[in-house]
Amino acid sequence: MKQSSDIDLHYLTLTDPFWRDYQRLVRDVVLPYQWAALNDQVADAQPSHAIENFRIAAGQSQGEFYGMVFQDSDVAKWLEAVAWMLCQQPDEGLETTADGVIELIAAAQQPDGYLNTYFTVKAPEARWTNLAECHELYCAGHMIEAGVAYYRATGKPLLLQVVCRLADHIDGIFGPGEHQLHGYPGHPEIELALMILHEVTDNPRHLELARYFVEQRGREPHFYDSEYQRRGCTSYWHNYGPAWMVLDKAYSQAHLPIAQQETAVGHAVRFVYLMAGVAHLAHVSRDEEKRQSCRRLWNNMTQRRMYITGGIGSQSQGEAFTGDYDLPNDTAYTESCASIGLMMFARRMLQMEADGEYADVMERALYNTVLAGMALDGKHFFYVNPLEVHPAAIRCNHIYDHVKPVRQQWFGCACCPPNIARILGSLGHYIYTQTEDALLVNLYIGSELTVDLGSQSLTLRQRGNYPWDEVIELSVDCPVPVTTTLALRLPAWCPSPSLILNGQAILLEARRGYAYLTRQWSAGDTLRLTLPMPVRRVRSHPGVRQNQGKAALQRGPLVYCLEQADNGADLHNLRLSERQDYQLVAGEGVLAGKTLIRASGERVAAIEGAAQPLYRFDGDIAPRQAHPLLFIPYFCWANRAEGEMRVWVDEQSPTVPCR
Amino acid sequence: MKQSSDIDLHYLTLTDPFWRDYQRLVRDVVLPYQWAALNDQVADAQPSHAIENFRIAAGQSQGEFYGMVFQDSDVAKWLEAVAWMLCQQPDEGLETTADGVIELIAAAQQPDGYLNTYFTVKAPEARWTNLAECHELYCAGHMIEAGVAYYRATGKPLLLQVVCRLADHIDGIFGPGEHQLHGYPGHPEIELALMILHEVTDNPRHLELARYFVEQRGREPHFYDSEYQRRGCTSYWHNYGPAWMVLDKAYSQAHLPIAQQETAVGHAVRFVYLMAGVAHLAHVSRDEEKRQSCRRLWNNMTQRRMYITGGIGSQSQGEAFTGDYDLPNDTAYTESCASIGLMMFARRMLQMEADGEYADVMERALYNTVLAGMALDGKHFFYVNPLEVHPAAIRCNHIYDHVKPVRQQWFGCACCPPNIARILGSLGHYIYTQTEDALLVNLYIGSELTVDLGSQSLTLRQRGNYPWDEVIELSVDCPVPVTTTLALRLPAWCPSPSLILNGQAILLEARRGYAYLTRQWSAGDTLRLTLPMPVRRVRSHPGVRQNQGKAALQRGPLVYCLEQADNGADLHNLRLSERQDYQLVAGEGVLAGKTLIRASGERVAAIEGAAQPLYRFDGDIAPRQAHPLLFIPYFCWANRAEGEMRVWVDEQSPTVPCR
Repeated sequence: MKQSSDIDLHYLTLTDPFWRDYQRLVRDVVLPYQWAALNDQVADAQPSHAIENFRIAAGQSQGEFYGMVFQDSDVAKWLEAVAWMLCQQPDEGLETTADGVIELIAAAQQPDGYLNTYFTVKAPEARWTNLAECHELYCAGHMIEAGVAYYRATGKPLLLQVVCRLADHIDGIFGPGEHQLHGYPGHPEIELALMILHEVTDNPRHLELARYFVEQRGREPHFYDSEYQRRGCTSYWHNYGPAWMVLDKAYSQAHLPIAQQETAVGHAVRFVYLMAGVAHLAHVSRDEEKRQSCRRLWNNMTQRRMYITGGIGSQSQGEAFTGDYDLPNDTAYTESCASIGLMMFARRMLQMEADGEYADVMERALYNTVLAGMALDGKHFFYVNPLEVHPAAIRCNHIYDHVKPVRQQWFGCACCPPNIARILGSLGHYIYTQTEDALLVNLYIGSELTVDLGSQSLTLRQRGNYPWDEVIELSVDCPVPVTTTLALRLPAWCPSPSLILNGQAILLEARRGYAYLTRQWSAGDTLRLTLPMPVRRVRSHPGVRQNQGKAALQRGPLVYCLEQADNGADLHNLRLSERQDYQLVAGEGVLAGKTLIRASGERVAAIEGAAQPLYRFDGDIAPRQAHPLLFIPYFCWANRAEGEMRVWVDEQSPTVPCR
Repeated sequence: MKQSSDIDLHYLTLTDPFWRDYQRLVRDVVLPYQWAALNDQVADAQPSHAIENFRIAAGQSQGEFYGMVFQDSDVAKWLEAVAWMLCQQPDEGLETTADGVIELIAAAQQPDGYLNTYFTVKAPEARWTNLAECHELYCAGHMIEAGVAYYRATGKPLLLQVVCRLADHIDGIFGPGEHQLHGYPGHPEIELALMILHEVTDNPRHLELARYFVEQRGREPHFYDSEYQRRGCTSYWHNYGPAWMVLDKAYSQAHLPIAQQETAVGHAVRFVYLMAGVAHLAHVSRDEEKRQSCRRLWNNMTQRRMYITGGIGSQSQGEAFTGDYDLPNDTAYTESCASIGLMMFARRMLQMEADGEYADVMERALYNTVLAGMALDGKHFFYVNPLEVHPAAIRCNHIYDHVKPVRQQWFGCACCPPNIARILGSLGHYIYTQTEDALLVNLYIGSELTVDLGSQSLTLRQRGNYPWDEVIELSVDCPVPVTTTLALRLPAWCPSPSLILNGQAILLEARRGYAYLTRQWSAGDTLRLTLPMPVRRVRSHPGVRQNQGKAALQRGPLVYCLEQADNGADLHNLRLSERQDYQLVAGEGVLAGKTLIRASGERVAAIEGAAQPLYRFDGDIAPRQAHPLLFIPYFCWANRAEGEMRVWVDEQSPTVPCR
């Protein structure tokens, strides 16, 4: 069996003070909670019925299918999250539960390898008739990811065998053959899943099928149209308008072949899931054209259409991208899952080219939008992550209908919490990347990793208190000296990194964002990397009309924001001082352990609002008075009372005489 | 027959250079154009079928009803506009055409007095079963307005008789009686129409019926619910969701009795139409409680929920108000018809209390949003009048789906053009208000008016070049000297008005925005009013988060804006200088005759946009360079190429040291 290019999580232990808490939350809160939800055992939660759907499909229970057409994926994502947790810490009870679920899934699989409870129970005759709208390949993809993860975690082959049969079945249905479907999914996911499966099976059919789905995409005559005609022009989502998923092909990035796509468009989650698969395929098959497409679309997304928080998707309608530099802060969609997908895309790009830019974006998304997606209590979640919130306006203006000022109990919809569990459970895959010539350290997260270097092995320990403290200690352990290369990422946000090797300061030479250290490593070698974390004022490209005259604060990887709880109401009347004098302040209460930032600023002098006219003439520009501002990390917002929040703050700017 | 409290337009002649052009447009372009449209004779226009609907209802033609459930109102509004034009200038051809339409309408009236082509032709059994949704009383109201106007204009009684029969029929259907309907309209209009009818007929039933509709509104058990039950829970607009007009009672201001309403809510046009009727009723019936309601709701609307352009309705959904100080400039709805209704409301308030505040708002709406609703060519129209437009964003972000960057040919929908024709045709009703103790001069529009003062009469001539020039000449003519009071409005925008009477400067004492001049007037008396028009910088209440750090320019009644055509793209990168040095500039081309304003300012130094990162750290705050700004009157925007526009412009503000 071929070795994966990913880190084997069995050989990774997270020791990080910051992340341990999150992993504990996933293990102790999110996974049990979700298991109960999948079994409809959560009081006053909307029913999930996901496990029961499998029982019915397996003939072990009577009843009707219930839930979304992609309800199966909730079970698959839960299993995948369980798998990653088991790699790092055995848990007999959890494993036994998972084994039971896997047997149930196996029993629900059809003799021909087909596996999908919606179509098996509700519409067997409609299999593969609505790729554009019905998530059949999306669910298959998540099940494949779960099968691979569980096999990697436990070595147990059952679910892997199930998904291999499923993949073979799909391979028979789709392809260039006269009697095959020349289609591809409305919601990408199968592509990246087949690439992951191929890493375990080394079966060329799996790679070829992934390539087929990627290369068919956007071809004319258009598959969505032909299948739409074949099924009599029916639409699964007809309540949302006439077949718009078929008509608006850019919504699922199917408007053009990927090789011809120039910009990041459509549903943001679909886009990054698709590109994660394309990047993986380009890497494994050394496909330069696909690498160029990945690079081109990555650049458009991250240089024109990404929020400072690593959020993507500027609008609610279609949960989609809009246009270059159109980044409204208050009506943003910026779905948590989209930033998770952005990390997946970045991870695959890193495996292809060791460029710190990918890791910078990955870190931005992780420490800001992804973390903001879950409350500090691990029990409440955001789908939508705006950069500016004004609760009074949300209540009265319908352009904010998609925005929630406080996190919701996750079971209102089940796509995001398990995704957060997946990503936190498999964090090791993002911290380190093992390339042919180096071990990349992408993220500074306290951990202990042992890597297999062919005949030898090397253990790397990271210790620190990132993202709060600037010093990271690394130490090496190996039975015999090993000659290899360690590459330490030098974040773009850090103005002056420095490194000490075994007590000796060494000159840092960055190559595309990494400092490469090639030498013979011996047990006891130590590295002390210092990444100074001054508070930095961030400003936007002049094309971003929403942010002109405004600045945001960032320290290390963390973007900060103002909250009403600390700064009073009407945050739009606050302004950052020109003087960049910042004080770091220790958070208290629910923010204990977090580093806050105090900055000098001013606020429009408080006047009895109602007494003032709506519009006033001349002279009396609103008087301002000094008013210190307190910023908290964006990922911590909305963990206190409901209130206003904003990331981009008006800025006092030098007065340039006009002549 | 009782004398109307309105000016008799037969005794008014418009001589104003600014407004003559508009009246000519209405007479020569809008009315003929619309007549052709009503008869489906406009090539590539959507069919109207409005006249044909009346033919079918009259049994003079075979066929099906076509159009909106309120299609009849297009014909009524056209007739009303014709009537007002005929007052000021005879036109045999036009009058003959109108007489023919009126005969047709009379023939379409049912024996019991009922008149509505949709229900007569399409659903006779469904009459009066869906007040909340079907505009039956709204159409009746417009027909009544037309009947009164045509009678006033020509003295011909036919249409007046028709609408009296209609009013009597409605009076039989609605009322407190056991077998009567206790309802009221979803879209107000009948209330103000009955008050106007009452002025001609002096029939107390008409006043009482208006009162009944006004006082029933919002009572529990709710009429919309009971009629909804009675008709089997059907919804006329079911394509737009399940009976939301019934569920969302605030949409039509029916959520509470008017006496209990505290804020301006719901569909903006409905709100101002309703309040125009309530104010008229409160005035005529000396109803203090209703006057208080009008005042209270007027204050909330104009002091918290009105744009500087006199636009109302902050959101597209429901074409509705949102909340206090929520005034987004780019997603605003601010429908042209809503500002016309605002003028109607203001006019009735002025008849009740001579307060310049009402005239200030009336003037603001007229010279900005209402005029902006029609292109300078009189052939293109805006429904939505945003204060900030960015065409590139409109094309890609769905929050702007309701915004058009250029005016549309009016016949795409027929509600606004005839409304503009109505208001411009009856401008005299707004210029002057005759109260018991004075003749109020509200608007400075060149005209000649003769008023009947019982046994005597007085002719007042206004001359000037408003809104461009600050001097207004008034002269009096009367066969014998008359003792009466003239009240000249002193606009809130004018810092230092001055007045010369027969060559003598006189001390101006304003009482609630008017200067009262009581004396014996003789032929040849002259008044020279000077209203200095400095360019004024306007700033918003600190509650308006969209406008903080921004200013708008106003000169006289005109609000100004920046357009891309004069200032280049990316208007958000422009900033007004602190120095308030303005130059008045004569407009050219399509803007010939308009006064433009040049102001010093700065722009973010042009850098090759794409070369810059999306986010940059520290120090390099965007360099700015001096850049003169050219402002044009808001009502003239979008008369050149499609481009960006904004009213509220970033402002260079004094740097206050924070200490």
